[in-house]
Amino acid sequence: MWMDSKAEVEWASRTRASFSRRVSNALLLFTGDMEYLDKFMEDKWFALQLAVWGLRGVSRVILANNPLSGALILAALYWDSPWQGLLGTVGVLASTLTAVITGQDSGEVAGGLHGFNGMLVSLLMGVFSSAGDWYWWLLLPACLGSATCIFLYSGLSTFLQHWDLPAAVFPFNTIIILYLLCTGPNNPYFPHHPTIPPGELEPNGTELAALKVLGGIPLGVGQIFACGALKPSLLILGAVVLYSPLLAVHALLGSAVGTLAGLSVAVRHQCLYSGLSGFNGALGCMAVGGLFFTFSWRTHLFAISSAFLSAYSDIAMSNMLGALGLPACSWAATLTATLMLLLTGSLATYRIPISRVRAPERNLCFRSQWEAGNTADGESTDV
Amino acid sequence: MWMDSKAEVEWASRTRASFSRRVSNALLLFTGDMEYLDKFMEDKWFALQLAVWGLRGVSRVILANNPLSGALILAALYWDSPWQGLLGTVGVLASTLTAVITGQDSGEVAGGLHGFNGMLVSLLMGVFSSAGDWYWWLLLPACLGSATCIFLYSGLSTFLQHWDLPAAVFPFNTIIILYLLCTGPNNPYFPHHPTIPPGELEPNGTELAALKVLGGIPLGVGQIFACGALKPSLLILGAVVLYSPLLAVHALLGSAVGTLAGLSVAVRHQCLYSGLSGFNGALGCMAVGGLFFTFSWRTHLFAISSAFLSAYSDIAMSNMLGALGLPACSWAATLTATLMLLLTGSLATYRIPISRVRAPERNLCFRSQWEAGNTADGESTDV
Amino acid sequence: MWMDSKAEVEWASRTRASFSRRVSNALLLFTGDMEYLDKFMEDKWFALQLAVWGLRGVSRVILANNPLSGALILAALYWDSPWQGLLGTVGVLASTLTAVITGQDSGEVAGGLHGFNGMLVSLLMGVFSSAGDWYWWLLLPACLGSATCIFLYSGLSTFLQHWDLPAAVFPFNTIIILYLLCTGPNNPYFPHHPTIPPGELEPNGTELAALKVLGGIPLGVGQIFACGALKPSLLILGAVVLYSPLLAVHALLGSAVGTLAGLSVAVRHQCLYSGLSGFNGALGCMAVGGLFFTFSWRTHLFAISSAFLSAYSDIAMSNMLGALGLPACSWAATLTATLMLLLTGSLATYRIPISRVRAPERNLCFRSQWEAGNTADGESTDV
Repeated sequence: MWMDSKAEVEWASRTRASFSRRVSNALLLFTGDMEYLDKFMEDKWFALQLAVWGLRGVSRVILANNPLSGALILAALYWDSPWQGLLGTVGVLASTLTAVITGQDSGEVAGGLHGFNGMLVSLLMGVFSSAGDWYWWLLLPACLGSATCIFLYSGLSTFLQHWDLPAAVFPFNTIIILYLLCTGPNNPYFPHHPTIPPGELEPNGTELAALKVLGGIPLGVGQIFACGALKPSLLILGAVVLYSPLLAVHALLGSAVGTLAGLSVAVRHQCLYSGLSGFNGALGCMAVGGLFFTFSWRTHLFAISSAFLSAYSDIAMSNMLGALGLPACSWAATLTATLMLLLTGSLATYRIPISRVRAPERNLCFRSQWEAGNTADGESTDV
Repeated sequence: MWMDSKAEVEWASRTRASFSRRVSNALLLFTGDMEYLDKFMEDKWFALQLAVWGLRGVSRVILANNPLSGALILAALYWDSPWQGLLGTVGVLASTLTAVITGQDSGEVAGGLHGFNGMLVSLLMGVFSSAGDWYWWLLLPACLGSATCIFLYSGLSTFLQHWDLPAAVFPFNTIIILYLLCTGPNNPYFPHHPTIPPGELEPNGTELAALKVLGGIPLGVGQIFACGALKPSLLILGAVVLYSPLLAVHALLGSAVGTLAGLSVAVRHQCLYSGLSGFNGALGCMAVGGLFFTFSWRTHLFAISSAFLSAYSDIAMSNMLGALGLPACSWAATLTATLMLLLTGSLATYRIPISRVRAPERNLCFRSQWEAGNTADGESTDV
Repeated sequence: MWMDSKAEVEWASRTRASFSRRVSNALLLFTGDMEYLDKFMEDKWFALQLAVWGLRGVSRVILANNPLSGALILAALYWDSPWQGLLGTVGVLASTLTAVITGQDSGEVAGGLHGFNGMLVSLLMGVFSSAGDWYWWLLLPACLGSATCIFLYSGLSTFLQHWDLPAAVFPFNTIIILYLLCTGPNNPYFPHHPTIPPGELEPNGTELAALKVLGGIPLGVGQIFACGALKPSLLILGAVVLYSPLLAVHALLGSAVGTLAGLSVAVRHQCLYSGLSGFNGALGCMAVGGLFFTFSWRTHLFAISSAFLSAYSDIAMSNMLGALGLPACSWAATLTATLMLLLTGSLATYRIPISRVRAPERNLCFRSQWEAGNTADGESTDV
């Protein structure tokens, strides 16, 4: 026998490692970040590449990064309202194409980072428009607004990279506020509904329906895409489960926390029923619980704090901006998540550098791995 | 004789040095920063440590750092209103404990840096509440709001440390505005008084009472703790004198400047009488005159400019935020002090690195000392 | 003959080079940045130096840097209204002198960088004042406000230099808003007109006069100096042509784009006629087209995008601040230009470091020159 026992053990361990790697690869085929797809797509048609980039962009809205999740979400939007689905598609394509034209980093474009802000701007323009569905002129500001997101995304990234912070949905929040301010409720070309602040007193106080409040929790996940119907919201939640079950749990948890926060300061019932109270909490909870920080019971507690902070800040901002007839969108969650990323103390030890953020499950698995290699290529992330 | 004359002279000078050091130590025992206390407290009970940290935090509100000053101030607050005193105590403890739990830097916690924002949030919630004293439910938002300050303080410090800027009272100002926006004047659980902007016209114009305006100057010092009674305000001023007479002089000077600024743009008489016109000026003047800059006649002039700028900005911001029913708190002074710390030109040469800021008198004494040792350990402050 | 043919050729080429240099010098004598003047003025009287610094400051408002342009612009202002001309002169002198007193960098003072914000503050105070011309008390806030600009300029420069961004007209925009907020429309000493937002509906809708709209385009250039008369506006445009024809073209183009943007969202007719719709577009277009970026067809396209973005942001901000009775001044253009300077991608490759910005024509000529020497002294700009 030409193999001694030591070599045999080594061979066996290698086989086992290769087997477990194969299994894990198979599991990761359609879940998680699907990173292998990027290499696979490299020499394909531009239209196909653009579709994958766009679908990644769609999933990025809800902090996922998986083209299949994106496809499911887009399906949910078309199911809820074909016009909204079309607007979303136009938005994500317009902003991704603008990124290509203005020469943004190709890795970022391929990762869908230049799609999600544009999609949100486009979707929200549709939601606030009081001109009704299929008002084709709306595609003009939708395209322009989505394209402008690239400018803000690029500029803000340069500004924020000193602290290794993502530009997140700051561009969307800025552009939609500017658009609504620009046109105003009585604009002859692009009229829109003014927003009612959540703290406004209701004319005739009705009893709070507990069941409807509970129904608002999954709706809070759908409201991230400005979708207020239950079944499409559940499909969106399913798309998140596909990307990462941990993220989906945090989304529901955050939405519940947001609803609780809304109850505690007695917001309008409609805000609770429609899920508008929950979606900032959901985003704040998802960002901290597993995505930008390695999951642990500590980060879990911080995620709940983040959800509360997001939810209360959202109520505050909605009341302030509502006085001007404007919505607070996801300002609260974005600012809270940014704050959490800046935190020192025990949370900071769980922080994952932005360039290494993957699905929460992979963050958990591979933390020790990249920590070992951190000294070697750490300088690429420490800008 | 075994000592030659040279050695004798040396011995005498050493004795003299040691004697003067002892005297200066005795003088510094209860005034200034009382830094020796930190080492003394190291192995004591946690409750005792927490008390000292909290009292330092109380004094930090007025830019001092002395537990005895803190105790005097707390006594003044309980004297003015026991409910406000209780709220302040709860606030400072809640935020200091949160800092311990979230694993903030122990040196910062021991220095009271995590107490003053929480205390202010808690105090102001009490002042604006229209539910009356001893409304026990208020302790809930007071605790939560104070705890949240730690998140903002920690995050902002990371953001601002690039310019060696302190997070100061930005967290308090943000949280109190968010709280007031969240609840609104007609909230069923936590109602509060709306704020009247200082530029509002008075219904029936009365004569300005010169004596009352003069009385507003010491009240301006008390208003830093939202205390509107004369005798407790004088006790608070006394607490500042204990920490640093120079700081106390600047506090009064700044309050006078603020009152002058208020007169020059004809604010409501009540603002002048209550000291609300003066407290931003006082804070702006104290920060520049001796605390963050070595005292000299130049910094003194800059301190007066800073007081004017703080006072006018405060009137502007009060008018703006007052249109939404919100108070401007100490936004103006905090922004002005931050601006002054960023200034280039002749003021910048007097700038003391944040980590080396002590009582103004000590800043003056030890400037040459740390300047000599600057090259050795300068890298610890130049982040 | 002591010169061989090779030396002769070299001598001839040197002569030609020296001749072409002389011609280019003669051409550049009164156009462009007139940098030779700084050395010439070094040992002259202070009053003369101050005049040149002030005139540079006047031209800096419209992104030029040429004392002759400054003189022409000042003449245009005195032509339009002697009181406004006086206010402008007082403003630019007050802030330049404050910069000298507070020990700002002498190179910056000589370049007029400490004059333009003060001038704008002073001019706008005059425009918004409802106390009429020759209300001498107004000189008091004009001087103080102009002086305060130095504090903001210096502090903001320190803050922004990390990204190699200029403080631009942020100080002016901040101070004028603070002043208007401080005094309010009904102030007994300094009353002012409230601003009407551009989105406000007009009581009786009249037809849009195409000729008047076209006339608004050159007025947009004048509105940079708050000048609403046609002939002085054309003189101001002439002053820009003297500095750089390319800049003047972009000014007109940007103003036209701004008018187009105003038409597209149906702003009040008066905004279009008076040039108020155009001036932010003009500033945004000038900053990107040739000044901070080397001119090329790509930067030209980006300049047009920047003009649109500035113009729409201006409408949005005017509507928001107009709800509080405040003007949006040049916030939109300043923010947009700052954003453009932060942009990554293809625009960033044309970016000129702030310390090397000259007239667009010179930027174009000397880009290759300083690019060659970039490695040698690049560290001075990379702060």
